[in-house]
Amino acid sequence: MKKLQGGIIGAGKDSFIGFVHMAGARLMGESEITAGVFSRDPQKSKVRGKELRLAPDRVYLDYKDMIRGELSRPEEDRIDFVIIASPNSSHFDMTMAFFEAGIHVFADKPMALSLEQALAIRKKSEDSKLLYALTHGYTGYAMTKQARFLVETGVLGEIHRVVVEYTQGWLAPLINDPDLFDTWHLNPKISGPSCTMMDVGIHALNLVQTITSLVPEEVCADLTGTIPGNPLDDQGSVLIHFKNKSRGLLHASQVSSGEGNALRIRVYGSKAGIAWDEEYPETLELMNNDGSSTIFKKGTPALCDEARRAARLPGGHPEGLICAFANIYNSGFRFIRREAVVPGRDFPDADQGVTGLAFIEAIVKNSKGREKWTVMESL
Amino acid sequence: MKKLQGGIIGAGKDSFIGFVHMAGARLMGESEITAGVFSRDPQKSKVRGKELRLAPDRVYLDYKDMIRGELSRPEEDRIDFVIIASPNSSHFDMTMAFFEAGIHVFADKPMALSLEQALAIRKKSEDSKLLYALTHGYTGYAMTKQARFLVETGVLGEIHRVVVEYTQGWLAPLINDPDLFDTWHLNPKISGPSCTMMDVGIHALNLVQTITSLVPEEVCADLTGTIPGNPLDDQGSVLIHFKNKSRGLLHASQVSSGEGNALRIRVYGSKAGIAWDEEYPETLELMNNDGSSTIFKKGTPALCDEARRAARLPGGHPEGLICAFANIYNSGFRFIRREAVVPGRDFPDADQGVTGLAFIEAIVKNSKGREKWTVMESL
Amino acid sequence: MKKLQGGIIGAGKDSFIGFVHMAGARLMGESEITAGVFSRDPQKSKVRGKELRLAPDRVYLDYKDMIRGELSRPEEDRIDFVIIASPNSSHFDMTMAFFEAGIHVFADKPMALSLEQALAIRKKSEDSKLLYALTHGYTGYAMTKQARFLVETGVLGEIHRVVVEYTQGWLAPLINDPDLFDTWHLNPKISGPSCTMMDVGIHALNLVQTITSLVPEEVCADLTGTIPGNPLDDQGSVLIHFKNKSRGLLHASQVSSGEGNALRIRVYGSKAGIAWDEEYPETLELMNNDGSSTIFKKGTPALCDEARRAARLPGGHPEGLICAFANIYNSGFRFIRREAVVPGRDFPDADQGVTGLAFIEAIVKNSKGREKWTVMESL
Amino acid sequence: MKKLQGGIIGAGKDSFIGFVHMAGARLMGESEITAGVFSRDPQKSKVRGKELRLAPDRVYLDYKDMIRGELSRPEEDRIDFVIIASPNSSHFDMTMAFFEAGIHVFADKPMALSLEQALAIRKKSEDSKLLYALTHGYTGYAMTKQARFLVETGVLGEIHRVVVEYTQGWLAPLINDPDLFDTWHLNPKISGPSCTMMDVGIHALNLVQTITSLVPEEVCADLTGTIPGNPLDDQGSVLIHFKNKSRGLLHASQVSSGEGNALRIRVYGSKAGIAWDEEYPETLELMNNDGSSTIFKKGTPALCDEARRAARLPGGHPEGLICAFANIYNSGFRFIRREAVVPGRDFPDADQGVTGLAFIEAIVKNSKGREKWTVMESL
Repeated sequence: MKKLQGGIIGAGKDSFIGFVHMAGARLMGESEITAGVFSRDPQKSKVRGKELRLAPDRVYLDYKDMIRGELSRPEEDRIDFVIIASPNSSHFDMTMAFFEAGIHVFADKPMALSLEQALAIRKKSEDSKLLYALTHGYTGYAMTKQARFLVETGVLGEIHRVVVEYTQGWLAPLINDPDLFDTWHLNPKISGPSCTMMDVGIHALNLVQTITSLVPEEVCADLTGTIPGNPLDDQGSVLIHFKNKSRGLLHASQVSSGEGNALRIRVYGSKAGIAWDEEYPETLELMNNDGSSTIFKKGTPALCDEARRAARLPGGHPEGLICAFANIYNSGFRFIRREAVVPGRDFPDADQGVTGLAFIEAIVKNSKGREKWTVMESL
Repeated sequence: MKKLQGGIIGAGKDSFIGFVHMAGARLMGESEITAGVFSRDPQKSKVRGKELRLAPDRVYLDYKDMIRGELSRPEEDRIDFVIIASPNSSHFDMTMAFFEAGIHVFADKPMALSLEQALAIRKKSEDSKLLYALTHGYTGYAMTKQARFLVETGVLGEIHRVVVEYTQGWLAPLINDPDLFDTWHLNPKISGPSCTMMDVGIHALNLVQTITSLVPEEVCADLTGTIPGNPLDDQGSVLIHFKNKSRGLLHASQVSSGEGNALRIRVYGSKAGIAWDEEYPETLELMNNDGSSTIFKKGTPALCDEARRAARLPGGHPEGLICAFANIYNSGFRFIRREAVVPGRDFPDADQGVTGLAFIEAIVKNSKGREKWTVMESL
Repeated sequence: MKKLQGGIIGAGKDSFIGFVHMAGARLMGESEITAGVFSRDPQKSKVRGKELRLAPDRVYLDYKDMIRGELSRPEEDRIDFVIIASPNSSHFDMTMAFFEAGIHVFADKPMALSLEQALAIRKKSEDSKLLYALTHGYTGYAMTKQARFLVETGVLGEIHRVVVEYTQGWLAPLINDPDLFDTWHLNPKISGPSCTMMDVGIHALNLVQTITSLVPEEVCADLTGTIPGNPLDDQGSVLIHFKNKSRGLLHASQVSSGEGNALRIRVYGSKAGIAWDEEYPETLELMNNDGSSTIFKKGTPALCDEARRAARLPGGHPEGLICAFANIYNSGFRFIRREAVVPGRDFPDADQGVTGLAFIEAIVKNSKGREKWTVMESL
Repeated sequence: MKKLQGGIIGAGKDSFIGFVHMAGARLMGESEITAGVFSRDPQKSKVRGKELRLAPDRVYLDYKDMIRGELSRPEEDRIDFVIIASPNSSHFDMTMAFFEAGIHVFADKPMALSLEQALAIRKKSEDSKLLYALTHGYTGYAMTKQARFLVETGVLGEIHRVVVEYTQGWLAPLINDPDLFDTWHLNPKISGPSCTMMDVGIHALNLVQTITSLVPEEVCADLTGTIPGNPLDDQGSVLIHFKNKSRGLLHASQVSSGEGNALRIRVYGSKAGIAWDEEYPETLELMNNDGSSTIFKKGTPALCDEARRAARLPGGHPEGLICAFANIYNSGFRFIRREAVVPGRDFPDADQGVTGLAFIEAIVKNSKGREKWTVMESL
């Protein structure tokens, strides 16, 4: 069986997430990145392509050029899929164009800049039967699968409370010196209607959905820009009423000085609770009613089947984010190869992307207004 | 110098907090508990008094009886102070009566059932020059003092975000079986307008104030009763706008299955952040801008003077909650003996109690209404 | 029932362990410290006695003076027990003298300076029927009792490996500056044949015995003095062959820069392992065969009876070392009052003290010699 | 620049370490695995090669077949290096043969079965100028580099104590049921003179050397086989006298029920100590003299240059073992490409392999004998 071929948009020299995509796609040896657009600057793109050992004629000027170029190649030697890892504002056009060209899509979040765009992508993906995989990376960890298993099998009882956060500190230095560095995340034209919620809050919501299947019914939000001159939020908190009547709290920040990448979730049910922290992703705490906790660890026999299959190394050997991405990529490859796989479960899909944008629009609207609760659109 | 004498209301056989009060008051050998009311049932009270080795004539029927009895004793052999550790609804009457009798007061939180009562207590305490110490116990830990020091000396820069929680699970079993046990905390007549916020949320607010001196300006709350038939909240979250424009998030729950006593705070400033967890109270994390953290530990030379003085044992020897209470008691004793001490700093005082009730009233009102932000009274 | 009266030797102004003894003895209100020798300097002793609010005529010049003075008092108003918390070299004479006077003894470790002395104390204690409680404090923690329970009930299977350490750093500054401060622990006349093993290594051995009942058969030791001019060990490691053929490793240090009080034990059996750390004493990890861990927490229903009874506060409310000491004192008081209690289980007794000194003599001898294994005397 | 080509011996379907090697070699896109021997069974090897998408004619019968086959290919399309990830007993012959064929070698530990073999490999590698990289994987972590930096720059002062352990539990189930599964690690013909020390103890020693540059002068060991019928050790402890007079303790076990992969090291100097745990590899604790600790985290500005360069993702995004292996591979590739790199520092080299085997021979000899200290050969 030959390796699948992938193109990538993004993955410039300083893009860590681009590297994670490429490494995750390649990890199991099932695919190769053979085409790319690495910069708006053709010269930079060329240099980076060379560094990555791509054939020079497959380093493209832009995504349209890539589509044109690849379609002109023999069918058995062109890209099967594309990885969209460029800034937010480009996601919609690119996704639609690659679908149009019959190319499968792995896209970084957010799906698009607006709910309307997200719905269009979902429709297009359904119509085309092509893969749309949204790379919420942590959903690939063994422990998020074990967490879902504990919820699904009733170990927690009925869920009534969820607390989730995504706390980072990388923008904090801008508070004292807004000119210290430049980032497109603070630019509404590129980032969309939110900075922090679009960048990391949307991950937190997806994690809730992945583990509990709960979807917000109405939200109450307080989004704030702390950095002088920042037109977008860089911190925020959201109260959530879920559809099952359970209560939720989602908070996110990129100005929490000293924090790295604290994506943490706790889910409480009538019988037990669970806690997970992406900075220590290979353990999961189950808090039992009798006051004891059970600590599950990656790569051990104590886990459910899905969690066991999601690990490559035995317990105690750290795997990390690249392996989590690899799980998503491998599930996507199964879809492409028409093997058994469950979209929305084995990898985040267009439905989840739509929910993410519905959430963003609801909280941005609520935060700006004076009404207490804003109903989130359910589509 | 003779030991101070104290009376206690509460401290029945099953009251753990009553024991903590007595143990904290006695720890340094500066006071003795010589009088008490231990139950509404005179027989039970008598038995408990005997167990605690009190003179039988100083085990009283109720607080009025205690006041009468003690005042009838020679001045040099009567109680100097009382500890009020009975349920919420009794706090106001008792406090006023002991003040009237010229007796110093250590009171468990909440100060009273309403803001109005709290203001009356504050006034009475000011007029009488008697001690009013509100036993928010964790304010006595060395690490909360070190946290305050880091804020006050500018190590964090200007504060712009506070996340605090008080999460417990002891009421969770009632979700499945509301008759499993009975507690006055769920009875509005005894507990007041809130269960969880009155019981633990108010601690979380006080911790914010102790460490940062920040006071809420307006709040947006979602308080919920999860236990079937529970007229009060057992979980809730509050968005806070502080007066300095910084943002806050306070959440509390007593139905978080499997949780013990998770009082946790994080404070983020423009230069650094701090994190503290009462379940591991002897360490404090300072999260630095360069991505490293400094871990401060109780009983070590790295600490500020106030934090060093708050420890009795060297680093690595756990002290726990009783020692924290002892710090509050010893500061209160200094006040009684007219030694140098700063109310509101060395122990929580009536001002902090007033803030607590103002907060409770604002969030209860907000949670019931449809307005998004409710201004908190500042008195 | 009247409170028991206790005398104390030690507990000078800077003695933290003296304070822990007094606080532990008083915590439950069952005893009062009414007599003391606080310093070799009568003036200092007097001042300290006043500070502790003792009657001036019960602050004594030395232990002989205390015995004389107390025996001259009416029987119902003299000390029932003494706490020996003075330096090592004084333990033997004092213990024997108090036994001679018919006074119960709580003694800090080590029991004596030599195995011969320890055997004499044990004999005297047996003959006199008086209490001899050796205050290995951590044996009073709920979690050491839970650990013992897991071993005794076969949850671990047969034990084959024990790793225990007691690591501190407080002597490390002397490496660079041996004159920085003076401590009797480095003086062989006061400390005995070992510094670190006598001070903390002996605790580590007792912890092994408390939890597993295992006793060393032969030992191989490497004790070293790191501080220039130090005639005694300040770090050391010991290989142990236990009598049941299981293997052990005990290491201790007081020159491990930056360490606080790391008493840590792991016990491995054929079915499971356990891990406990005195710096976080309220949790115990059970490492299961299937790769999961169970975390037991103080004050929760998940624990065995003895562990539950050893806690005063609910889970999540830290208790600390003073409460652990209180458990030992309260068990000792039960012995004094002839209530049901199991010496050697509810508190460390003379047998355990003898084992400690047998261990010290064996490792000191082994470390100095060239033979690989030295048989430990079993008496 | 074209990708380097590599062959691999090992990496059968169930070999996790084989996968780590391949993934680490491929991670940065600088090399491709193009040849392999995956099993002694040619059919299995063929299937596995297909699964890995190798050209069928480059899946070989054995290492000799691989050498022959590759050498018969055009120079620009044959393997540049081989990865030896087969059982211990094969390492020596294979390494010598590939050197003979002019092919660079990445070899899993141990270097060989005996010190004599190790010396021969080292000589051959020196003579041939070919790469010999010994894949002690954790040496590639950013944090081991930061640890070395702290030692080298004098932050710890002079080292006087090292405690290192490598504790696993995967063999523990064999204690109760020796027939549960079969592993070559317990077979002296394949494993060599030791099971646990050869498999993991040798890693622990290398970690000490990597961080501190200390080499043992004499050792005292107690190696034990716990599994019934096991002729080799499955647990053991070693006392070490290092050449600088500092003391060491190395212990390892594969029968510690419930443990995963606990490679942990602590190094104590006169000024500070450090602690690191491979199960949480992205943080490093520096224990300061004033009782505070500094926590360094991967991917942050607080680190030294070498540690910063060793990370690919920002702080808080877990990398794991594959990335650590990739660092070793990339350094090896620099050596192959004659770029600047320091063998023995940027990757473990033959010198370190020799030290490992000298250690194994010394501890095995000591453990069997009755002499207390055995001098380790220094070659």
